[in-house]
Amino acid sequence: MENIDYLIHAKWIITCEENNRILENHALAIKDNKILAIIPNNVAQQKYTAAQTEHYTSHAVMPGLINSHTHLAMNIFRGLADDLELMDWLTNYIWPAEGKWVSDELVYDGSLLAMAEMIRSGTTCFNDMYFFLGATARAAEISGMRAHIGMTIIDDVPTAWAKTADEYFARSLEFYQQYKNHPLIVPTFAPHSTYTVSRKSLERIKQLAHDYQLKINIHLQEAPAEMTASLAKHGKTPLQHLDELDMVTPQLIAIHMTQITEEDMEILQLGNPSIVHCPESNMKLVSGACPVDQLLKRNINVALGTDGAASNNDLDMISEMRSAAFLGKLTANDPKALSAISTLRMATVNGAKALGIHHVTGSLAAGKAADFIAIDLEQIETQPLYHPESQIVYAASRNQVTDVWVNGKQLLKNRQLTTLDEKELLQKAQIWRTRIKN
Amino acid sequence: MENIDYLIHAKWIITCEENNRILENHALAIKDNKILAIIPNNVAQQKYTAAQTEHYTSHAVMPGLINSHTHLAMNIFRGLADDLELMDWLTNYIWPAEGKWVSDELVYDGSLLAMAEMIRSGTTCFNDMYFFLGATARAAEISGMRAHIGMTIIDDVPTAWAKTADEYFARSLEFYQQYKNHPLIVPTFAPHSTYTVSRKSLERIKQLAHDYQLKINIHLQEAPAEMTASLAKHGKTPLQHLDELDMVTPQLIAIHMTQITEEDMEILQLGNPSIVHCPESNMKLVSGACPVDQLLKRNINVALGTDGAASNNDLDMISEMRSAAFLGKLTANDPKALSAISTLRMATVNGAKALGIHHVTGSLAAGKAADFIAIDLEQIETQPLYHPESQIVYAASRNQVTDVWVNGKQLLKNRQLTTLDEKELLQKAQIWRTRIKN
Repeated sequence: MENIDYLIHAKWIITCEENNRILENHALAIKDNKILAIIPNNVAQQKYTAAQTEHYTSHAVMPGLINSHTHLAMNIFRGLADDLELMDWLTNYIWPAEGKWVSDELVYDGSLLAMAEMIRSGTTCFNDMYFFLGATARAAEISGMRAHIGMTIIDDVPTAWAKTADEYFARSLEFYQQYKNHPLIVPTFAPHSTYTVSRKSLERIKQLAHDYQLKINIHLQEAPAEMTASLAKHGKTPLQHLDELDMVTPQLIAIHMTQITEEDMEILQLGNPSIVHCPESNMKLVSGACPVDQLLKRNINVALGTDGAASNNDLDMISEMRSAAFLGKLTANDPKALSAISTLRMATVNGAKALGIHHVTGSLAAGKAADFIAIDLEQIETQPLYHPESQIVYAASRNQVTDVWVNGKQLLKNRQLTTLDEKELLQKAQIWRTRIKN
Repeated sequence: MENIDYLIHAKWIITCEENNRILENHALAIKDNKILAIIPNNVAQQKYTAAQTEHYTSHAVMPGLINSHTHLAMNIFRGLADDLELMDWLTNYIWPAEGKWVSDELVYDGSLLAMAEMIRSGTTCFNDMYFFLGATARAAEISGMRAHIGMTIIDDVPTAWAKTADEYFARSLEFYQQYKNHPLIVPTFAPHSTYTVSRKSLERIKQLAHDYQLKINIHLQEAPAEMTASLAKHGKTPLQHLDELDMVTPQLIAIHMTQITEEDMEILQLGNPSIVHCPESNMKLVSGACPVDQLLKRNINVALGTDGAASNNDLDMISEMRSAAFLGKLTANDPKALSAISTLRMATVNGAKALGIHHVTGSLAAGKAADFIAIDLEQIETQPLYHPESQIVYAASRNQVTDVWVNGKQLLKNRQLTTLDEKELLQKAQIWRTRIKN
């Protein structure tokens, strides 16, 4: 008998490995925060002595969901204004609210609130982009989540966090130095977009990202107006603008991409960046629909993100998967497009690939980190059950996520948060609501 | 002090009346299964002595959701097959399964399972179309839901319920005679579609529906192939075919309508039928997108339905509202289209109008039946809260529905079903799964 830390018995295990295996009555053996083995329940019981054993008898266990595009602190502005034209929404509601309220305190409280929401819906890892990065990182350390935090760069848009491009770089590099060796927190670059970041700043980011081996996140070709403006100004699409700077590489994470020309498609195939699809934000703000099926067929990696809760209006990756599958099929005009299993992969392993942590997480396999969730499928809404992956993508809701583990630590236990105080967070939310509403 | 049955205090009351009032700290006074008054909490306490008082202190109380298109018993086939071409799905999976398994027993068990799901997600009234109507009606009587049950007519498609058109009519009229005076169960006609029901049968339905004053439900212009076939066969669209028979009237409930020509639009405006929009089914099966915003702007009544759980894959009207708003905005290319409040109206009062029970239910007003639900919005996912209607449509999930009342009777009490046995239903689901899977 081998001593291990945890033995996790499950009704089903969905590995999200290449072979898309769905195992029945198997167990995860966990030691030193890593998956040691995935073997049949009965074999596991003969082979291991575990310090703690869990029985997820009516659950599917799968890799934790990876939310590949967020603006966590914007949770504070959730539902402040909806059903508006993008520029009306931004200029008359969101920017004024941000200008007035964004601070270290707001980002800390908003990020914690967002992390509580993410953990409660099965997300174990996020890829954020906002201001006051230190506040988000402190929140992540408390929550225990795996956190990729974007060092936002914007030219000539002063915020409470930084006034000039130089200040944005200075704050970012400070953050990088502080967190570069953290086990769960990974700094990334996050130039906001090609229309708000100068060529000079983009080149500086390129150099730094190369030196430090960091991912570069950018909002790219989110909506038709962005394309029109770029074509008018540069005679090329934003992607082509980046390509000219040799920035379309596997380091690039291109967020949204609802607009893709034929020439763009070739650039994507040659450069091999990752795309983050945010279907609910794109629908709600009428940005368009990313041609996900076309991208996947060309072996371009597509991950999934919710975008900020102010535009979406939640951080629920379970419902985002369903929306991605529905919109993906309609856009491709093909009901076979974005199958349940390929959508699950977008929300897990493809996210890990985009963030460059595929060797660490994103699927369940021996040697990878113990980042996994349990979803109870023995509920009225997901019965009878013929295929667990179909129930998760097409019928389950976030409250069926009962348990969440990140790097061998349990963050949600039978629906209860273990690292965060739900009541305190609800009180904080109400304090912010009172301040902002008045 | 006036004696009443129930006093329901709520943090918010969303009436879904024409004025779209959202009241804070008001109460519903309920007597003899009807709403007697909606007045401020403190006034209510001085005016009424209630046999029972409820305090929904962190909840929005709103009209029960009306699911205007279902095939309830198909819950048994939920997730049996997904991600397939429509005809492959129908001919190789659904029809064989139905042919082999549909029976009074399956319809009864499947309908009960569906009703449990609907009650748990805030639906108080449904508009069904299937076979073995008596089984659905018996289930409805047990569950306590408001049930509109379609008398299905199909020519030359024999089922276990009826072999010929004459037999479909005979079974239907038998059902009508049994339930014509029921307080909560309403028979309707449900010719399957113009491509499966002959002109002769349609004319017979028209006459009977006129004599008995019944609504006529029909799947209409669901997908492009239906349009192409109708144009090839009749030289007109299915709607135009019905119009020629003088069947496009306020009695008609046209389900799906993803394809609408300019000429069709004029017919709809003149005839004034109701449309049922099923966005998730239409996306998943790649049927198309109903131009809801255009219809609403022309004052055509649009209600909301989930379709059967085999195609959708749930009966969750909360998520269906979100999908309707998202798809509606994208289709209209206008983020102002299908606002939160207009989407709430589609799922409530517009459904009541479609079913012809607007004088009884669909909004909260003195004199209407006590059909209402409470949604707890003081949860991490719906905080901070600036506008309750936004949180319900864009951020809430079905499990936040805590209490459901139909005609003054409580069917869900703090998430517990009062009329149905959840455990027994889960066992039944597993028995059907074992039978069908093997």
